[in-house]
Amino acid sequence: MRKKLKLGLFGFGCVGQGLYHVLHETHGGVKAEISKICVKTKNKERPIPADFFTYSKDEILDNPEIDVVVELIDDAKAAFEIVKTALEKGKAVVTANKKMLAEHLEEIYQLQQKYNKPVIYEGAVCGSIPILRNLEEYYDNDLINSIEGIFNGSTNYILTKVFEEKKSYTDALKTAQELGFAESDPSLDVEGYDPKFKLVIAIAHTFGIFVKPEQVINIGIDRISDLDLKFARENGYFIKLIARAFKANGKVYGFVAPQFVETTNPLASVRNEYNAVQVQGAFAEKQLFIGKGAGSYPTGSAVLSDISALSYDYCYEYKKLHQEGGVEFSNNVVVEAYVSFDQDTDTISIQDFENFQSGYAASGKQYMVGQVKLEKLQAWSKQKGVGIILAPNSQFISQDAVQENAYELRTA
Amino acid sequence: MRKKLKLGLFGFGCVGQGLYHVLHETHGGVKAEISKICVKTKNKERPIPADFFTYSKDEILDNPEIDVVVELIDDAKAAFEIVKTALEKGKAVVTANKKMLAEHLEEIYQLQQKYNKPVIYEGAVCGSIPILRNLEEYYDNDLINSIEGIFNGSTNYILTKVFEEKKSYTDALKTAQELGFAESDPSLDVEGYDPKFKLVIAIAHTFGIFVKPEQVINIGIDRISDLDLKFARENGYFIKLIARAFKANGKVYGFVAPQFVETTNPLASVRNEYNAVQVQGAFAEKQLFIGKGAGSYPTGSAVLSDISALSYDYCYEYKKLHQEGGVEFSNNVVVEAYVSFDQDTDTISIQDFENFQSGYAASGKQYMVGQVKLEKLQAWSKQKGVGIILAPNSQFISQDAVQENAYELRTA
Repeated sequence: MRKKLKLGLFGFGCVGQGLYHVLHETHGGVKAEISKICVKTKNKERPIPADFFTYSKDEILDNPEIDVVVELIDDAKAAFEIVKTALEKGKAVVTANKKMLAEHLEEIYQLQQKYNKPVIYEGAVCGSIPILRNLEEYYDNDLINSIEGIFNGSTNYILTKVFEEKKSYTDALKTAQELGFAESDPSLDVEGYDPKFKLVIAIAHTFGIFVKPEQVINIGIDRISDLDLKFARENGYFIKLIARAFKANGKVYGFVAPQFVETTNPLASVRNEYNAVQVQGAFAEKQLFIGKGAGSYPTGSAVLSDISALSYDYCYEYKKLHQEGGVEFSNNVVVEAYVSFDQDTDTISIQDFENFQSGYAASGKQYMVGQVKLEKLQAWSKQKGVGIILAPNSQFISQDAVQENAYELRTA
Repeated sequence: MRKKLKLGLFGFGCVGQGLYHVLHETHGGVKAEISKICVKTKNKERPIPADFFTYSKDEILDNPEIDVVVELIDDAKAAFEIVKTALEKGKAVVTANKKMLAEHLEEIYQLQQKYNKPVIYEGAVCGSIPILRNLEEYYDNDLINSIEGIFNGSTNYILTKVFEEKKSYTDALKTAQELGFAESDPSLDVEGYDPKFKLVIAIAHTFGIFVKPEQVINIGIDRISDLDLKFARENGYFIKLIARAFKANGKVYGFVAPQFVETTNPLASVRNEYNAVQVQGAFAEKQLFIGKGAGSYPTGSAVLSDISALSYDYCYEYKKLHQEGGVEFSNNVVVEAYVSFDQDTDTISIQDFENFQSGYAASGKQYMVGQVKLEKLQAWSKQKGVGIILAPNSQFISQDAVQENAYELRTA
C-alpha cells in the first residue's frame, strides 16, 4: 500500500517552494514530506524554517531515512552527479533537468537497472503535459508513427506576441523574460536546444532508442527576419518552433525547426506559454495534448505527480527499448523549406534544392522555397542572415532505403 | 514478462474487424491473437475464415485457453452478463460499452475485487483519448478540481456543421448519420445520455465515487431552436454539448448541458467528431486532451491499448475510492443559463431565477438569462419548446453547506 515518502530536495526555487506549499500546507493526497533541502546560497532569507536547509549534499545523500531525491537545480553536470549518487545510495529520483537527462539518458537507464531504483522525470518534457507517462503506459505498442509539437513555452510565447500583437522579436523576448517564461540567457530556447533536449527524451520513450543531443539537428527562431515575418503574414501563416520525430523505412528521424503553420492547424491555437504534443499512430490516429509548458507551476505539478507515483513504486519500464530491436536514428531526410538570405550570399543556390519550387528577390534580400536535405539546412542555419522555416504540411522524405533491403545489402 | 494473450471477441463490427487486421495482418507490438469470435447473425458473409466464428457464447466463456474477453456488442444488458461470467471464469475483460459500465460500475468494481481479474474500458470514454488511464495513473492525488469537455462526437459533429456550414439541425444530423458518426436512433446522443454515461465513468476515476446515471442531470441539444442559434450567432458564440463534474464544498457536482462557448475558448476549436477533455487542478492548472471520439478507429485504438496493457497485467486500482472518504454527489447547484420558450408558456417566469439578468420577447418567442437552480432547468428541459443553454464562463454556485459543517450538523 501507499508509503509516506521522505524527500530530500536539491534547489529551492519556485518549483521547490510550490512543492513545499502543496505538501505541507494543504492536506493533499500525496503522502510525502520534505525532510531536508540542499541549497547553494548561504544567508539568504527564506520563507520556511531554517532547519529545513543544508549546504552539504551529503546530508541528504547519506541520510538513510530519505527515500526520494528531488533534483531541481539548473546545473546539468552537478545534477547528474546528484542523480548518480542518489541511485548508488538506494534512493529514487525525481528530476526535471532536461539537459542532464538528454545528455545522460542511456547511462541513467543503465544505472536504474543496476541499482534497481527509479528515476522519473515527467517535468522535463513539456511541463505539465503527462506525455512520458502516456508514452510509457498507454502507447505501449509499436504503432506510433510520429510525435511532434510545440515543446518550448518561451519561444511559443515570443512567437505568439510577434504575430498577435505585431511586436518585434526583441520586444516579445523582453516581455517573455519579464514574465519568467524565458531565461536571462535565452539562447537555449531560441536556438532550439531546449526543445531538442526534450525531443531526445521523448524519442527514447516513443521509439525505444537512445540518441545523443548532438545527433539531432536544431534550427532556432533567432534568425527569423522581418522578411520572413512578412512572408508568413502575407500567406496567412503563423510560425511555430516544432520538435518532431517519426519513423519511416525502419529508421527514426527527428529534428527541431521553425515551421509555417496554417490557422486551421490545431497547433496554431496553442498560444503563449502553452505546449502541445501530437502523437500519431497507424490505428490511434491523432492525439493532441495541450498544457502549460513554461513557468514554475506546470513543472511543479509534473514533479508532484512523479512523487505521488513513487509512493506506488512507479518506474519507467522503457518497454520499447526491448520491442524495437535495433532501429537506428538518421538525418538522411529531405524536407520542404523556405530559406531566406542576403542577396550577396553565394552559398545558397537553386542547385542546392532537390526540388526547387519558387523564389523571390528584392531590396537585397532573397528567398527560395523547395525540397532540400536536412543536413544542408543545418549548415545554412549557422550562416548569418539566413532564415529557415519549414513549409506548412511539409513532406518529410526519407532518403534511407527500407530497412529490410538495407539489411540484405549488409549481409550480402 | 510479456504474455501472448488469447482473445475471445464478442461482436465483429468495425472495431472488431480493425482489431483483427492489426493483430493478424501487421506485426504489431501487441502480443495477442484472436482465438474465437462470438457473433449473433448466422450465415452472414464475413471477411475472415469461418472457423473463427461461433454463435455460442459458452464456446468463449468456457474455453480455459482464452485469457481475455473483448466485449464489443451494443446490447448493454447482454454485455453485462458476458462481463460477469467472464470474470467468474477467471478471464480479464476489455469493453467499450459505456451504457453498461455507467449502469453497473460499482458492481463491476466489486466483481473485479471478488475474482481478482481486471475489467478495463478506455474505449468507453471519449474514444481515443486516454483519459481514464491518465486519471488512474497520473492525476493520482486529490488535487483535481474539475473535469469537463466535449464527450460526444456525434453531437459535436452536428453542432460544428450547424455553425460552420449554417446547416439546419436536421440536415447536420442526417450527414452525421451517413458518415457513421451518429446512430440511426440518435436520441442517446442528442439528448445527452451518451456523454452522461461517460461522465458517470469519469467521475468514479476522478473523484472516487460511484454515481448512478439517473442521479445525473442531462440536457440535450435536441430542443435548440432557430432563435437560440440566432442568439448564439449574434453574440459570436458556438454551442457545445459539455459534460462536466467538479468538487466544491466537499461535494461532487456533475451534469451534461449545452453551453455557449466563446471563440477564444480552446473548446471552440474542437471540431466535428473530435472530443476534448479538460482536467483542472489546484496545482496542475489546465490540461486539455483532444482526440477523435466517434467512429470505429478511435474506439479500436483504445481497445488495442487496453489489450496491450493486459499483457502486462494492468488493472485499474480505483485509488481515489480509498482516498476520498465519503464525498457525496449533489445536484444542489445554481448555474447561469439562457432559457428560451414560447411566449404562452406559463411555467417559466422571472421569479424562477435566483438572479435574473435580462430577457427578450418577440414574435411568439421569449428568452431569459440569469442564475437558476439546475433542478429547475432539468424540469424545464422536458417541456416542449424550451431551449436551455448555459452561459459562457457560467459560474456554478454550490448550494450545499461546506462539508465540515454539514458533518457537524449530522453528528450533533
